[in-house]
Amino acid sequence: MNIALLGSGFIARFYAETLHAQRRTDRIITVYSRTAANAKRLADDYDLAHHTDSMEAAINHEKVDVVLISLPNHLHEPAVRACAKAKKHVICTKPLGRTAAEAKRMLEMVEEAGIFGGYLEDLCYTPKFLKSMESIRQGSIGKVLWAKSRETHPGPHSDWFWDKEKSGGGAIIDLGCHCVEISRNFIGKHIKPLEVMCWADTQVHPIEAEDHAIGLVKYANGAIGQFEVSWAFRGGMDLRDEVMGTEGTIWVNSFLRTGFEMFTTGKGDGYVAEKAEVNKGWLFPVGDEAHELGYPHMFTDMFDAIEQNRDPLETFYDGYIVNAILDAAYKSAETKKWESVVLEAWRGDSADSYEKEFTSYDDDHYLIKEEMLPNGDKKLILKHKTTGEIVQKMKQ
Amino acid sequence: MNIALLGSGFIARFYAETLHAQRRTDRIITVYSRTAANAKRLADDYDLAHHTDSMEAAINHEKVDVVLISLPNHLHEPAVRACAKAKKHVICTKPLGRTAAEAKRMLEMVEEAGIFGGYLEDLCYTPKFLKSMESIRQGSIGKVLWAKSRETHPGPHSDWFWDKEKSGGGAIIDLGCHCVEISRNFIGKHIKPLEVMCWADTQVHPIEAEDHAIGLVKYANGAIGQFEVSWAFRGGMDLRDEVMGTEGTIWVNSFLRTGFEMFTTGKGDGYVAEKAEVNKGWLFPVGDEAHELGYPHMFTDMFDAIEQNRDPLETFYDGYIVNAILDAAYKSAETKKWESVVLEAWRGDSADSYEKEFTSYDDDHYLIKEEMLPNGDKKLILKHKTTGEIVQKMKQ
Amino acid sequence: MNIALLGSGFIARFYAETLHAQRRTDRIITVYSRTAANAKRLADDYDLAHHTDSMEAAINHEKVDVVLISLPNHLHEPAVRACAKAKKHVICTKPLGRTAAEAKRMLEMVEEAGIFGGYLEDLCYTPKFLKSMESIRQGSIGKVLWAKSRETHPGPHSDWFWDKEKSGGGAIIDLGCHCVEISRNFIGKHIKPLEVMCWADTQVHPIEAEDHAIGLVKYANGAIGQFEVSWAFRGGMDLRDEVMGTEGTIWVNSFLRTGFEMFTTGKGDGYVAEKAEVNKGWLFPVGDEAHELGYPHMFTDMFDAIEQNRDPLETFYDGYIVNAILDAAYKSAETKKWESVVLEAWRGDSADSYEKEFTSYDDDHYLIKEEMLPNGDKKLILKHKTTGEIVQKMKQ
Amino acid sequence: MNIALLGSGFIARFYAETLHAQRRTDRIITVYSRTAANAKRLADDYDLAHHTDSMEAAINHEKVDVVLISLPNHLHEPAVRACAKAKKHVICTKPLGRTAAEAKRMLEMVEEAGIFGGYLEDLCYTPKFLKSMESIRQGSIGKVLWAKSRETHPGPHSDWFWDKEKSGGGAIIDLGCHCVEISRNFIGKHIKPLEVMCWADTQVHPIEAEDHAIGLVKYANGAIGQFEVSWAFRGGMDLRDEVMGTEGTIWVNSFLRTGFEMFTTGKGDGYVAEKAEVNKGWLFPVGDEAHELGYPHMFTDMFDAIEQNRDPLETFYDGYIVNAILDAAYKSAETKKWESVVLEAWRGDSADSYEKEFTSYDDDHYLIKEEMLPNGDKKLILKHKTTGEIVQKMKQ
Repeated sequence: MNIALLGSGFIARFYAETLHAQRRTDRIITVYSRTAANAKRLADDYDLAHHTDSMEAAINHEKVDVVLISLPNHLHEPAVRACAKAKKHVICTKPLGRTAAEAKRMLEMVEEAGIFGGYLEDLCYTPKFLKSMESIRQGSIGKVLWAKSRETHPGPHSDWFWDKEKSGGGAIIDLGCHCVEISRNFIGKHIKPLEVMCWADTQVHPIEAEDHAIGLVKYANGAIGQFEVSWAFRGGMDLRDEVMGTEGTIWVNSFLRTGFEMFTTGKGDGYVAEKAEVNKGWLFPVGDEAHELGYPHMFTDMFDAIEQNRDPLETFYDGYIVNAILDAAYKSAETKKWESVVLEAWRGDSADSYEKEFTSYDDDHYLIKEEMLPNGDKKLILKHKTTGEIVQKMKQ
Repeated sequence: MNIALLGSGFIARFYAETLHAQRRTDRIITVYSRTAANAKRLADDYDLAHHTDSMEAAINHEKVDVVLISLPNHLHEPAVRACAKAKKHVICTKPLGRTAAEAKRMLEMVEEAGIFGGYLEDLCYTPKFLKSMESIRQGSIGKVLWAKSRETHPGPHSDWFWDKEKSGGGAIIDLGCHCVEISRNFIGKHIKPLEVMCWADTQVHPIEAEDHAIGLVKYANGAIGQFEVSWAFRGGMDLRDEVMGTEGTIWVNSFLRTGFEMFTTGKGDGYVAEKAEVNKGWLFPVGDEAHELGYPHMFTDMFDAIEQNRDPLETFYDGYIVNAILDAAYKSAETKKWESVVLEAWRGDSADSYEKEFTSYDDDHYLIKEEMLPNGDKKLILKHKTTGEIVQKMKQ
Repeated sequence: MNIALLGSGFIARFYAETLHAQRRTDRIITVYSRTAANAKRLADDYDLAHHTDSMEAAINHEKVDVVLISLPNHLHEPAVRACAKAKKHVICTKPLGRTAAEAKRMLEMVEEAGIFGGYLEDLCYTPKFLKSMESIRQGSIGKVLWAKSRETHPGPHSDWFWDKEKSGGGAIIDLGCHCVEISRNFIGKHIKPLEVMCWADTQVHPIEAEDHAIGLVKYANGAIGQFEVSWAFRGGMDLRDEVMGTEGTIWVNSFLRTGFEMFTTGKGDGYVAEKAEVNKGWLFPVGDEAHELGYPHMFTDMFDAIEQNRDPLETFYDGYIVNAILDAAYKSAETKKWESVVLEAWRGDSADSYEKEFTSYDDDHYLIKEEMLPNGDKKLILKHKTTGEIVQKMKQ
Repeated sequence: MNIALLGSGFIARFYAETLHAQRRTDRIITVYSRTAANAKRLADDYDLAHHTDSMEAAINHEKVDVVLISLPNHLHEPAVRACAKAKKHVICTKPLGRTAAEAKRMLEMVEEAGIFGGYLEDLCYTPKFLKSMESIRQGSIGKVLWAKSRETHPGPHSDWFWDKEKSGGGAIIDLGCHCVEISRNFIGKHIKPLEVMCWADTQVHPIEAEDHAIGLVKYANGAIGQFEVSWAFRGGMDLRDEVMGTEGTIWVNSFLRTGFEMFTTGKGDGYVAEKAEVNKGWLFPVGDEAHELGYPHMFTDMFDAIEQNRDPLETFYDGYIVNAILDAAYKSAETKKWESVVLEAWRGDSADSYEKEFTSYDDDHYLIKEEMLPNGDKKLILKHKTTGEIVQKMKQ
């Protein structure tokens, strides 16, 4: 695949690192930046033949197969529009839009143009995430009841993130987009997200947007998604997911505790990791940052999908659903009530509720709990199906 | 101290273990149970001189200095009433009441009787919790912004817990009482809890009460408390606290990951730990269960406080505040809105809001963020105090 | 118990903290230090009625039931001699002697005097250690094959430790005494330690004694003990044990990773923990230091044993065995060969070797390995009992 | 690169997975197995055009650029000889030889033939290892004093491993080759390994070779390497490295604790990970097994090196050094003494010893230790340069 890279900032460089590493076949062949000097610098650093300060020129470059959008949030829509016009496949960094309305327009553009629209939700491609999904599909943890995702750090790298107009919000839009899609995958993408309750506040920074938020997303099957996001966390970048199912639990720590620990008195100060705050004392680097964050597996899926003419794991449609959930979160933070997720284009299961199933112990009783006692006996707690009476029973 | 123990169930035995261990001076001298045989069995096991099936007899035993209530929730109030009548000091297991109204009556009883009322919130006495509080007091993590506490396990041991009438509810009243008081300590007991938002559901068990809930508690100073409680967790008993402050973070794992890991093929099956679900494969015992759960430090504080004629760290008043917060949680789970915490007897700071303070970079700018780049440069993100413009600046 | 405390240094204070905490019944009633001012200061701090600069005066104080030796290593023997003369029970800090010869004399003194001789090997009393021992006794990990104990930190607190004459050596005598006794407990105290191989070096410090050593101890039943000790470790105090058995594994982390993690930017600098090196960045405090290090359980066992007229878990005899193993380690570090453990007074099993038992698969074959394949099949690796041929076999 | 794969067993498949994943450019174009059916099966599974039961045919296939040896240990030498004859570049799985003599012949073959000889020491390519090496090069942990590597699991997958003649030994040759080269990298490849002390035993299995061993490798600069290897470990595959330097410490856990934890009651049994022993209870999968084990970075370095006409990080020469160290280990296990590493072809620093440097406190004193006390004072322990006297000093 020949790639046109739009943008030359922090994330664009992370993408370029990944794409040109590990003897991959795909190549960036041109880079666009509003600032010609930045385009040139990135082209030099990654040995690219072309660079330009014209977005159209980059997209329309004749060799380009797919356009990779790594621009600030408010520039996603115009970039997608230009790709649709040029009939070039497009893959876009997260979040897709600043709002569901914006995302929906982008979704319609790619579908109408018949081009590929891949949503670069990297954290749904981390190796641990992919393995977790496999375990869940195999039934290892039963039915998912709760799926939490947390991303917190001391705040983003670039000025535009802190400007609500350009970014579309604060920690919710920046980090919540990851968390919402992670939970949604765990719970099941076909299950309808019904409503959202969200707390958000600007606790520390002198900005308009929220720097800390916690949200709950209720799904049609009774499962609950949870996101915890903050730009006020001290200690590095905390990326964790937790899933509770009827038959098990999954805990994933993607960044700060991955089996790599270093203590240093501070000799030989070097770069530790994205958003690390200190370079002495106990440090927790990751082995291969891009890999831990899902980039290699994400690009593999995207380009394989284009070649195989199939959908990638994460599509523009998924990006739209995420934006719709985040819209409801922002609304709830204002109204202080649960707010419905407005989905004009829902493509999953239509059910808004599912029947509960209880485990029977015998014809007359439900099983509430079975427990092994220190002496080896089993204690049963049962509920009578009709009288509702709760009783204890011992089994040797 | 000579102690009358009311109750002979799981928690009563845990208390007895602790009190009669480690060459402590205090002694249980009588035990009461509704069922005489149970009282006798416990008395035999712990070598107690007396046992009885009359609560009054136990309380009024002439040698008794303090009464230890380890009864089901619906029996706390009558037991406290009996202690007040007998003018015997009383310490009561958690939660204090099933509702704030009940707790308030108990608070008034002890205060009117002039007796000591200690609230046995053991998880506010774990060694890790006490050390965390010390660090917070020293300012190690700055102002607390968020304090989460989580307790989840596969459900309680005794039948009465599962009966809403007797217990006062489900996972919220059973486990949330711990979590709410932990967060409240971290944030500051003098800070007023204002309102609560709570999701609760009965996801798995055939019961009326909730078996899973998540709640947020907003405090007057802008801090947010969070509780996560469940009777549907698989994998043991998960007890974790996390605190985020402006200058740092604290993560406490009190039970499932404490630096003790064991793999066994299953030979020699033995008791592992409270609420452990398996006895083969990888197991995570704790060294000294009572200690990790805070019992020794709790009783030490209670009896020292009685002797020194001072308040313990956790009083009936604290128990009342906890119940008031849980009442609001239950209401919010019904109304699906934030609900005010109704406090008829608030004794802390009266302020309902506090002014925010931002860090100035210079006379004209606030500092949003300072970041070390891989090349060693410092990047500043600043906001103009009057225009609101956000700019980036490099500092070498 | 009324206790005479000999010594007023770091460890003496740690002991005093423990003994006078948690409403324990036992009391220190006098303290001895060579320097009267130090004795007075400790007496003031712990509210002791008496203090003295005469060791004999302290020991012979009429109310004293038991003498607690917390003196530098070279003063243990004279102190024990004085106790034996006074017929006062004695408990002595680790290591018992600087050499086996010294330890043996102390052992003989207490046995001839008919007094109690308790060996204060605290790390064989940590809650995690006691629970591990229980699991091993229950057979959870089968026969112990290998037991490693590691203690490393940046070096001891007091000057006398660094002086080989007073301490008897370096990291081996200071830390190895713990590790050797931990491994010996795991493997079985009745199993004879046969020989030792040890590497030792002075890698960092300008001292005569070793600041780093690794040793292997071969036991009669084929099990291997291992110790890793250093005064050159950076990052705090690393206390870990690992045990491998035929049916399982135990990993214990007693200090640096116990489920308590804190990040701080450095505001509010306070004391973190014994031998912590930093007070900012990521810190790993322990909840209750004395408890994690085994002091409360150790004193409980010692005083219970005196009252019950039984041996404590760790006796002067154990201290002697440890010294004999360390003597062999020092010798091996010189000769660069395995050196026999010279035990003039071995009281355990006399066997120097045990027969091996292999698992049979059928009459003709031993089972080497059974393994589950990804497809669910079981693969067996077998060895013919007479021909010795090794074959693979599938079982569905 | 077009690759001929020799071998079709467990490791061959792991290699094939890696090479054909993540849109890599390099391709396996033919596979050889002694058993034609096995060659065919692998060719089918990975969609290879060719397969053969003639090693020469595979090597001499005209399109082949490089030969990848994934054969049992006793077949490495004949395979390398065939490559040398055919003048085809060769990369060979670990260990290079069964003995240093064998490895040296292979080294000479490739050097005389002028072909590329890459040593597939994957664990020196794990992302955590590469990042650790970078930190060490930057000086973050100062001079390395001790480097330990541990690999233990319940035993290998294939029958030939258990046959000493074919494999060259037991756990030492199979696992020790990894550990020795890991430590050697940490300490510095240019530093001469001088002598080895090793304990080895057959503790559990009915085999001739050792199933458990511990070894120490002394380097010319005073650093010590350590390996712990076993085929008798229960609990999965334990892969850990620990490095102690004068300024810091690195702890790497490559497999069993990487931030991914799962509890399952056992529903939906699936494959967990290489050498996992259980599929219920608490499990610790890795995200991307090949990546965690270093395969992608290893092949990238190998093929980049061929194209860039440079040495890879791990060469046949390194493989030879490793075998020489293991030879000394086997000898030491027999003689029970330290045994010299016999290196006929050492290419690093010739020094056999290095001078020690101590830190001066002032003209007259060395600094032994500086320590922060709880009250904030600094305590210094100093040694007089000429008298050798050790003193304590306080600094406020």
